Amino acid sequence: MRQIVYLCLSVLLTLGVTSAQSDSEAIEQVLNEQAAAWNRGDIEGYMKGYWNSPETLFLSGGKITAGYQKVLERFKQSYDTKEKMGRLNFEEVSVRMLSPQTALVHGMWVLHRRVDQPWGRFTLVFERKQGGWKITHDHTSSGDE
Amino acid sequence: MRQIVYLCLSVLLTLGVTSAQSDSEAIEQVLNEQAAAWNRGDIEGYMKGYWNSPETLFLSGGKITAGYQKVLERFKQSYDTKEKMGRLNFEEVSVRMLSPQTALVHGMWVLHRRVDQPWGRFTLVFERKQGGWKITHDHTSSGDE
Repeated sequence: MRQIVYLCLSVLLTLGVTSAQSDSEAIEQVLNEQAAAWNRGDIEGYMKGYWNSPETLFLSGGKITAGYQKVLERFKQSYDTKEKMGRLNFEEVSVRMLSPQTALVHGMWVLHRRVDQPWGRFTLVFERKQGGWKITHDHTSSGDE
Repeated sequence: MRQIVYLCLSVLLTLGVTSAQSDSEAIEQVLNEQAAAWNRGDIEGYMKGYWNSPETLFLSGGKITAGYQKVLERFKQSYDTKEKMGRLNFEEVSVRMLSPQTALVHGMWVLHRRVDQPWGRFTLVFERKQGGWKITHDHTSSGDE
């Protein structure tokens, strides 16, 4: 039994290494598309990076928001004008494959706005879903805390 | 090739489901042991929950700390007295297996201290390592931000 498990893991690992780079690129592409959507004031477009599921989680500060719909509403409430949205930049982005189906991503977010420049760190779990790589878990914190 | 992949995934999935509960229990046990170590003022003991590697990452607010040793030093500097350490409680802990080798954990942390009661949320990635389940990535945020 143990040998079958090792064999299976080896096969998957080999395939995984081969495709890891393109997976990383696909995931970075999702982030680029999210930033582009944000920067044209399109929160629905930005949300396409998240898994459309009640299980999707967004943690920020002390708050947890459960479910794609609630996360969408939270963004719409917090960023109800183009000024508040500002210009979003992701920096220092790092992608690490945890399995062929899962990736751990972290980086820095910066909002360039007229009146201030909030920033902080994020940790994302991406999972391979129908429709491509999607964020299933987002933990965001503020650099000003 | 595709069939071999599916077969391998099926085998691993079946084995994974069978062992998922005991994995969750083992991971919760690590957190319990961490809290117990913290509450007797033992930061080295608390750190046993983390992977002893330069790759271990700790994100908090806007700061990223890379490597087990740096994370240990950070804790020792921030919590250099028993009063500052207070009494640590983990609450609302949720464990989800991402793969047989990886788990996503989130929850709430509370420090009960004489003068204040800081609290917040955490997201942890646990990976199965030699020596058991270890935290390889920790993103912590404050509820007071």
